Amino acid sequence: MLMSADRFLDRRGKLLTALKKLQLEVLLVTNQANVRYLTGFTGDASALLMGGDHELIISDSRFETELEQECPGLEREIRTSKTTPLEFLQQVLKSRHVTRVGVEAGSLTVAEWQQLQAGLPELEWIATEGQVESLRLIKDKTEIASIRRAISIAQKGLRGLTGLLVPEMSELQIAHELEHLLHHHGALRAAFKPIIGVGQNSALPHYRPGQSRLDAAPFVLVDWGAVEPGGYCSDLTRILATSKIPPKLEKLYRVVMQARDAALQELQPGATGRSVDAAARKVIADAGFDRFFGHSLGHGIGLEVHEGPWLSPVSEDVLQAGMVVTIEPGIYIPGFGGVRLEDDVLITRDGCEMLSSLPLEIEIVG
Amino acid sequence: MLMSADRFLDRRGKLLTALKKLQLEVLLVTNQANVRYLTGFTGDASALLMGGDHELIISDSRFETELEQECPGLEREIRTSKTTPLEFLQQVLKSRHVTRVGVEAGSLTVAEWQQLQAGLPELEWIATEGQVESLRLIKDKTEIASIRRAISIAQKGLRGLTGLLVPEMSELQIAHELEHLLHHHGALRAAFKPIIGVGQNSALPHYRPGQSRLDAAPFVLVDWGAVEPGGYCSDLTRILATSKIPPKLEKLYRVVMQARDAALQELQPGATGRSVDAAARKVIADAGFDRFFGHSLGHGIGLEVHEGPWLSPVSEDVLQAGMVVTIEPGIYIPGFGGVRLEDDVLITRDGCEMLSSLPLEIEIVG
Repeated sequence: MLMSADRFLDRRGKLLTALKKLQLEVLLVTNQANVRYLTGFTGDASALLMGGDHELIISDSRFETELEQECPGLEREIRTSKTTPLEFLQQVLKSRHVTRVGVEAGSLTVAEWQQLQAGLPELEWIATEGQVESLRLIKDKTEIASIRRAISIAQKGLRGLTGLLVPEMSELQIAHELEHLLHHHGALRAAFKPIIGVGQNSALPHYRPGQSRLDAAPFVLVDWGAVEPGGYCSDLTRILATSKIPPKLEKLYRVVMQARDAALQELQPGATGRSVDAAARKVIADAGFDRFFGHSLGHGIGLEVHEGPWLSPVSEDVLQAGMVVTIEPGIYIPGFGGVRLEDDVLITRDGCEMLSSLPLEIEIVG
Repeated sequence: MLMSADRFLDRRGKLLTALKKLQLEVLLVTNQANVRYLTGFTGDASALLMGGDHELIISDSRFETELEQECPGLEREIRTSKTTPLEFLQQVLKSRHVTRVGVEAGSLTVAEWQQLQAGLPELEWIATEGQVESLRLIKDKTEIASIRRAISIAQKGLRGLTGLLVPEMSELQIAHELEHLLHHHGALRAAFKPIIGVGQNSALPHYRPGQSRLDAAPFVLVDWGAVEPGGYCSDLTRILATSKIPPKLEKLYRVVMQARDAALQELQPGATGRSVDAAARKVIADAGFDRFFGHSLGHGIGLEVHEGPWLSPVSEDVLQAGMVVTIEPGIYIPGFGGVRLEDDVLITRDGCEMLSSLPLEIEIVG
């Protein structure tokens, strides 16, 4: 097994090879998940200059100790509070005699971009996208172990929550208790504010928890995830029942389960994001609910809770062993409610492996 | 008192006047705090098109109900999941025959900016900064009441925390318990991950809580804030002691208190961000600690936890009644620890009013 520093060296080596092919002299990595992926640095507000003779992290004094511990051997330039981050970045680029710089267009604001260009007009600036993200698509063993940890924390959180719910709790209170339980079980933070949708609120796929009480309807949708200490995410969804399950909900649930099975059947190396999405979508359409499945089937998870590959009607992504994705078919009936089942799945050499392991039956709680 | 809808109309009216002066046909508002400020909309992922004959919010189907309730009378364009947000934005701009569009350079990524320009090359695109932010500098009565609420929640959270601390708790556990208490007292969320720095960790002004235990040193720095349900923030810092306070800490504390007093003396309409910062900095320098106060004295708070006006050695901002700022002098001794005291203060017609009300003596806890 690779020593951890070697792992990051290896990743940076792959990026350098890709940059050479693109004839980019250097790439300025500013997406913090990308910086972490390439260096192991768990801090924030730092940029990585990669390419040519450069492998250099540009950070500030509050992260000095951390950089020494987490990135031994990585060259660093440390800013003090006398310079702004953008000024310091310009000084470093100037001192390194860089002439042609790629930037990450998805993580730099227009204001930052214009300030950099105005400060160093003699440089050639090139907007790039997805250079590091494409390396992150396939997870190594350490990363898969981290995602398993994030899933385990999330699952323990839900189990704790089911033992704690009372009818009077509001969606927002439930979300807060769930966050607290995730912390308790070792999460650095929740991967996102948990979505808690009671009854018809569950028909909104990105609902934000509000004042509706748990006992306002016989069921509640819970969509949540955890970030484990290394930064990797999980993302899950379950429906919980608080009293007798309405027959209409049961019907939707059965269709969603079948859609899930169809997606898992299709999920293997060589399938595309589009084909897996289509397999699930066909089941939902055949049951007459195609109008009520408005989002895409799934997405990759890793250092970000939404990352490639994308499983959607328009995704050309070709699936490969080592990718980890969510499978989350849903049916949403306005005014009644929605069903979504979401699990985290590893694509293996000959198919896929379910990483999450919560029961699929609707649990009665509250 | 203005009806709430009138309040937002009034704010939008002020923005329209400013845009006319700039000869900007329309401004595309994409900073979500700015959208909320101008419309009262508490959702997310929406843009506001302002200027000429347009006052139009561009959102998606999950926010329809919310928009009807929160922004009655505001014209809206609602996207379904068949279009991407950027494609939909382009369609709307095209259908409205807009020719010259200002964008908010601080909240748009380079990737979004380039995609918009490529999709609508016939339009003139202008990067702007601070148009709405400059309106947000001075808070009205409703906003001040909201900030008071956010402060009250944060203070209750700290009181709860002091009654809950035990020596074995790690910084991270303390941060999580504090977040939970903020939620309990009505916060929508913590304004940021609480900074909990035990002993020498307190010497890092932006430390992230880790595994150090509360009993590893005789004192701990707590920097935290709450977001109240309307979206307004508080931001406070206190030092708590867990055993006998070291004389060196007491000395630093006295100097920081004096720096705080000096800043409050200077804090009034007509003072500049620089002059208030200088008043505090002089006290710290006179005590021989100027090298150990590396950050600026304070910043505005409102819908964002860091916003203008800025109190710093380089700030030209002129203070006016109705601004709300943090005052947070600090001294940080590497290897020993740091002291920072942070309060939230309203600038009034003839001086200032302390909005936060926690004791200034170091409390013994744990």
